[in-house]
Amino acid sequence: MKWDCSIVTSRRGVTSDGWTLLPSWGLMVTDPESVKVSLNAPVLIVGAGLIGASIGKALMAAGIDVHLWDIDRGNALVAAGRGAGTLDDLPDEAYRMVVVSTPPAVVAPTIVERLMRHPHAVITDTASVKGAVLSELTTAGNGVDISRYVGSHPMAGTQYSGPLTASEELFVDRTWVVAPRTDNRHDDVAQVVALARTCGARVVSMDADEHDRAVAEVSHLPHLMSILTAANLRHARAEHLSLAGSGIRDVTRIARSQTAMWRQILTSNRTEVRSQLEAIRDDLDDLLSRLDDSQRLEEFLSVGQAGARKLAGKHGHQMVETTAVVVEIPDAPGALARLFADVEAAGVNVEDLSVEHDPAREVGFLSIDVATDRADRLAVSMRDHGWSVRS
Amino acid sequence: MKWDCSIVTSRRGVTSDGWTLLPSWGLMVTDPESVKVSLNAPVLIVGAGLIGASIGKALMAAGIDVHLWDIDRGNALVAAGRGAGTLDDLPDEAYRMVVVSTPPAVVAPTIVERLMRHPHAVITDTASVKGAVLSELTTAGNGVDISRYVGSHPMAGTQYSGPLTASEELFVDRTWVVAPRTDNRHDDVAQVVALARTCGARVVSMDADEHDRAVAEVSHLPHLMSILTAANLRHARAEHLSLAGSGIRDVTRIARSQTAMWRQILTSNRTEVRSQLEAIRDDLDDLLSRLDDSQRLEEFLSVGQAGARKLAGKHGHQMVETTAVVVEIPDAPGALARLFADVEAAGVNVEDLSVEHDPAREVGFLSIDVATDRADRLAVSMRDHGWSVRS
Repeated sequence: MKWDCSIVTSRRGVTSDGWTLLPSWGLMVTDPESVKVSLNAPVLIVGAGLIGASIGKALMAAGIDVHLWDIDRGNALVAAGRGAGTLDDLPDEAYRMVVVSTPPAVVAPTIVERLMRHPHAVITDTASVKGAVLSELTTAGNGVDISRYVGSHPMAGTQYSGPLTASEELFVDRTWVVAPRTDNRHDDVAQVVALARTCGARVVSMDADEHDRAVAEVSHLPHLMSILTAANLRHARAEHLSLAGSGIRDVTRIARSQTAMWRQILTSNRTEVRSQLEAIRDDLDDLLSRLDDSQRLEEFLSVGQAGARKLAGKHGHQMVETTAVVVEIPDAPGALARLFADVEAAGVNVEDLSVEHDPAREVGFLSIDVATDRADRLAVSMRDHGWSVRS
Repeated sequence: MKWDCSIVTSRRGVTSDGWTLLPSWGLMVTDPESVKVSLNAPVLIVGAGLIGASIGKALMAAGIDVHLWDIDRGNALVAAGRGAGTLDDLPDEAYRMVVVSTPPAVVAPTIVERLMRHPHAVITDTASVKGAVLSELTTAGNGVDISRYVGSHPMAGTQYSGPLTASEELFVDRTWVVAPRTDNRHDDVAQVVALARTCGARVVSMDADEHDRAVAEVSHLPHLMSILTAANLRHARAEHLSLAGSGIRDVTRIARSQTAMWRQILTSNRTEVRSQLEAIRDDLDDLLSRLDDSQRLEEFLSVGQAGARKLAGKHGHQMVETTAVVVEIPDAPGALARLFADVEAAGVNVEDLSVEHDPAREVGFLSIDVATDRADRLAVSMRDHGWSVRS
């Protein structure tokens, strides 16, 4: 498993390729290789839905002893049948890690219950909103010591729910937020990091407030935009839907998700969600004012395009910086196959390809985007093969 | 090639499994098998971008003689190099079909030019807005007879552009709108239908106004919702983008598209687009008012979910009507694999699967959605294999 743990907090704004934990944890590690933690077992998963069962499958695949419980025995049975763990009970004291993957509304009381029942376990959860869980724990926790609770949030999911579609690959290369607090022991935080990594995820650490703002931006608002787009179809004649292509299907895919779960998520993060929606309302009014002015309209489209491309360019955490190598397109279609073959033979990974035009010279160019540190190699190779490369 | 041509018009609202052409065309055909038209060649494609080059590739794959022209010779060279046609010129009179696939802003003048140059050709275009093309032809056409022009719109495309990503599969099973007028000859309309079918598309016929309203609903508004969502990321801290999952990537995918092309599309359909955006603004205000009331919030989410599912369920034109066969989940995880094997052995296509719970009896059920006319067969087969099927 590759180490990849960057830390982002609203208080410090520190990011790192390795670990840079909050000083209050008493641990600062910059060399990821020097941090070796493995997940302590047995693990109990409470809530065998899509997320819980997928965690179970990933841990089982790593050879870890996983036990499952769900208030709906059908879920637990299906999850166990799909290889997510066993239904056998152990004594409460035996568990070293408890993962609470219940519906959002019951996460906090479930954490309190499990803190009391499992004295030797680190308790984590997978809820999409972290601040609400914390404030519920504080008000409803009846003075229970919550220092063994370390919140987390795997940023994965599908429009499906339930254990039937669980997959041990669900978290691979996805972001998994760990939200430590100053009252957590660093060994407990490390256990939750180990959980995420065992599932193949990339760990990002953020405090609860920062996390909740971030998910409002990148998850909750997009969900509501998808809902608004799909809800608008109630006005459309049935025949018009036959004109729907892949674009609207992409935009409305997440609107198919379970409404009860999303009602709970949005309600528990409603302050942040409201401010995002209000920003959209302002933009919508602005956009309406631009419809009759094609230049101002295109400016708006460009802002959206830039945001979408920034997101698309992020493979996991990293965006590859690219440089274009521009080759003149041969004036004989048959030679094009040879050009592509020579690009391939250069052994350089192509990030993007486009056709450019030089109106003055009436010739076409193939713009080949590659990682900046590979551009010279490609240019030399193409020149060696006799192509005209624009510098 | 399967025949599949349904006709929808705002004046008649007629749909048919075969052809039911407008009476003004003088042709009514109800048995699709009785309509046999093949595409007349040679075909000239004007504009070798993604759409033009993909049409060229599909026609070439069907053995049809295709010639390519593009104002940007680089595009034409790449398209020809990728097998979309030849760059050789024929005399203007030789062409029997001209497909105008230029950027939207120059479609109408290009149609006029081609009507004058190619006296034996049916002229069609692939522009996304049909009313604007027609009114430009009427005002800017200088009295040219446009009866040989039959508008069309293949409902396919990607976030990419240009001939590099062209594919002969782009239109397979996609909807292709043909927008006939009362001044069109039915043989000419049939040629455009043949073009669409040769590309593997399903033909829907609509008049221009109805088409433009439909695409505002299912394409132009979703595009702007994607743009608004992506544009909102300009407020987000860079670190927050690392929390982006597949949901926001789906919603913002089409926002990556070429802004110049979309500016032209939206501008030419701005009346319909404005009314769609105004409806969204009303819904947004409504949604904001529901954030503090979880029941009313969930009602709104359900309206969106219904719209998205209606769309998702449409495979091409048809939605499969399904019935759930509900089987009790065995109380031993090992038996679940046998249950799935028996479902598979029944030879019935499963449309959806979910886990249900009976709180009273504390047992779980597997709900297996299959086409309604297959439900009995599955239920009988499962009972024969000893499973408890709820009726």
